[in-house]
Amino acid sequence: MITLTTDLDQIYVSQMKGAILAINPEAMILDIAHDSRRFDIRRASFALSTAASIFPRNTVHVCVVDPGVGSERKGVVVESGRGRFVGPDNGVFTLPLLSTGEIRAHAIQTEAVAARTGRGVSRTFHGRDVFAPVAALLDLGESADSFGDPLEDLERFEVHGPNAEGGRTSGTLLYVDGFGNLATNIPEALFRAEEGARCTVTLGGKTFPCLRAGCYADAEPGELILLVGSQGTYEVSLNRGEAAARTGGVEGDKVELAREDQP
Amino acid sequence: MITLTTDLDQIYVSQMKGAILAINPEAMILDIAHDSRRFDIRRASFALSTAASIFPRNTVHVCVVDPGVGSERKGVVVESGRGRFVGPDNGVFTLPLLSTGEIRAHAIQTEAVAARTGRGVSRTFHGRDVFAPVAALLDLGESADSFGDPLEDLERFEVHGPNAEGGRTSGTLLYVDGFGNLATNIPEALFRAEEGARCTVTLGGKTFPCLRAGCYADAEPGELILLVGSQGTYEVSLNRGEAAARTGGVEGDKVELAREDQP
Amino acid sequence: MITLTTDLDQIYVSQMKGAILAINPEAMILDIAHDSRRFDIRRASFALSTAASIFPRNTVHVCVVDPGVGSERKGVVVESGRGRFVGPDNGVFTLPLLSTGEIRAHAIQTEAVAARTGRGVSRTFHGRDVFAPVAALLDLGESADSFGDPLEDLERFEVHGPNAEGGRTSGTLLYVDGFGNLATNIPEALFRAEEGARCTVTLGGKTFPCLRAGCYADAEPGELILLVGSQGTYEVSLNRGEAAARTGGVEGDKVELAREDQP
Repeated sequence: MITLTTDLDQIYVSQMKGAILAINPEAMILDIAHDSRRFDIRRASFALSTAASIFPRNTVHVCVVDPGVGSERKGVVVESGRGRFVGPDNGVFTLPLLSTGEIRAHAIQTEAVAARTGRGVSRTFHGRDVFAPVAALLDLGESADSFGDPLEDLERFEVHGPNAEGGRTSGTLLYVDGFGNLATNIPEALFRAEEGARCTVTLGGKTFPCLRAGCYADAEPGELILLVGSQGTYEVSLNRGEAAARTGGVEGDKVELAREDQP
Repeated sequence: MITLTTDLDQIYVSQMKGAILAINPEAMILDIAHDSRRFDIRRASFALSTAASIFPRNTVHVCVVDPGVGSERKGVVVESGRGRFVGPDNGVFTLPLLSTGEIRAHAIQTEAVAARTGRGVSRTFHGRDVFAPVAALLDLGESADSFGDPLEDLERFEVHGPNAEGGRTSGTLLYVDGFGNLATNIPEALFRAEEGARCTVTLGGKTFPCLRAGCYADAEPGELILLVGSQGTYEVSLNRGEAAARTGGVEGDKVELAREDQP
Repeated sequence: MITLTTDLDQIYVSQMKGAILAINPEAMILDIAHDSRRFDIRRASFALSTAASIFPRNTVHVCVVDPGVGSERKGVVVESGRGRFVGPDNGVFTLPLLSTGEIRAHAIQTEAVAARTGRGVSRTFHGRDVFAPVAALLDLGESADSFGDPLEDLERFEVHGPNAEGGRTSGTLLYVDGFGNLATNIPEALFRAEEGARCTVTLGGKTFPCLRAGCYADAEPGELILLVGSQGTYEVSLNRGEAAARTGGVEGDKVELAREDQP
């Protein structure tokens, strides 16, 4: 199976599918998300981490959020215990590769890919000309080292926490979803508050009161709540509203959680 | 075949697909629509009814428009002559189940599903943790009663008409599509007007003149028309414009049709 | 393989898929794009031309951007060296059929299709009732002439150039993508400028300075650049911005390219 995560127009995604099917007409291709904000590496990285959490380990995840296409930035194949990843080495694989243990990365030489496909490589669309063919070939059993040399260090963006030190629980806002929910990287075990407890969440320097709830419907419409989201981590939400609009939270913000009665 | 109708972000839809494929890697999954307005049960219900009209009876239609997820609202499997349906018991199945004759409904016990998947059930995403697995198992031949007890009454939202009484033909606005067309539940047989006849449509208490037309191109640009839409029922449209914006019509509005010469 | 390019809501696209699968449950269906602006024949035509460039010749490409549905406009099957095309004869096939050499076109008689499907043909949705079934039957080996008579002339929209005469290189703006990039029909060979050269692009009567670049990242953020896009033709772009918003360029605009040092 090959999954696709991009910030591209549908017509460009279709061209990637065409490039994969040209190599393997039987390939099974699944769209993860193409609605990332343009150039938003953090959002794409979160989408990839959700995909890695549910698809089998032998899946090849392709990501094309690639403002540096055609420049000096490298293309990369990463093999890990959570799946294989193909795309630009610009940090997009940061989140799925957190806590995966050992990984193996290889740079992709575009000439090696062109030699295999018999097609030229444009300088504006490596998604179609490089990453899609590499994914198709990996999926067919090709070895990652046939595309280039081992790569020591991958680009990664910074992720704060999660941690609970000195009585403060903090982490990072990883994703704002279409409902305006704010997903963090703070697991349930790191912050204990029984349902109904009054808490606060601090985001971008501002502190908001919120109710620890079990599900969205537990809150009054318009009330900020703190619950455990579908990835097993805390999420800030607004019943029938958008927590993102209310709080101004964006991906990358530092998040702090506290009990109101334990300041 | 399994179809998906949700108001979810693509990344969450992908997780539902992952949950289905984990149970049956050969499952055929088809997206119906994920562009419903958030929490809009009427729109999702219409989408499901169009799917039920064209896919075979053994199809499993999953719907996740589910603001009450994790609360007391029930999950349900419904078997009918128009297909099988899986989702929250919050009214989303109202339209596909109109005039289907006898149906059989079973509540879904989340524990029964968890026992089958070996995974926990979150309180925020039953689409992935409950409904997708149930659909995959039904599609593989599992019986609906293995997930829970029979359910007597399903939640349904109110649908007015269609009827033609006392010289007035009335019904309900079921769907505003992306062109701004207003689809009603009034079948062609219930309101007779030859093409070219001057009619009126009353929506939300306001009455608008319109032309009975055969196709969109029959009207002058900017003219409201009344025609038989693709579901066999009357539709109010504006050639090269949006009837919804012109009239203010929204899903659930009562609709009345009349001949101008027969007031 | 059958591809779909439309300006339709997802629920209507799903109905087309249902109509195809009713004829051939094994059909392989691929979405090209459904995000065209409504009624925008030029945008759909460009999407079709990108699809024709990468999918095999025996692919059946269905296009439903069809404001004239149900009127006198014809439905058509076109066979060419770049694939087969099914849809309304309103110009949508202009771009994929440029420079394909000989083509064969047949009008589609809706009665012939209805006879094959056993279903009625609505006057508002030939995508589902006519074009989808025809595509499914063609894909199964049916001959185009079984649906209607040969058609001499196809509708086409005007495309200027590309040409380089009298020292001026000109063409047409074919597509504004989601990044605001402006794709033209001017191939690299028709306008020679080494990377780093200062050029001008004239669009809609206005002239803008731009840098000949090799890739998006070559330019300063906010700088207009001219590069060879993924279709092998020149594209006007704005690094980390939208060239469309900056220039006002829209599909169909005449484009002129010049060297600043060679006025």
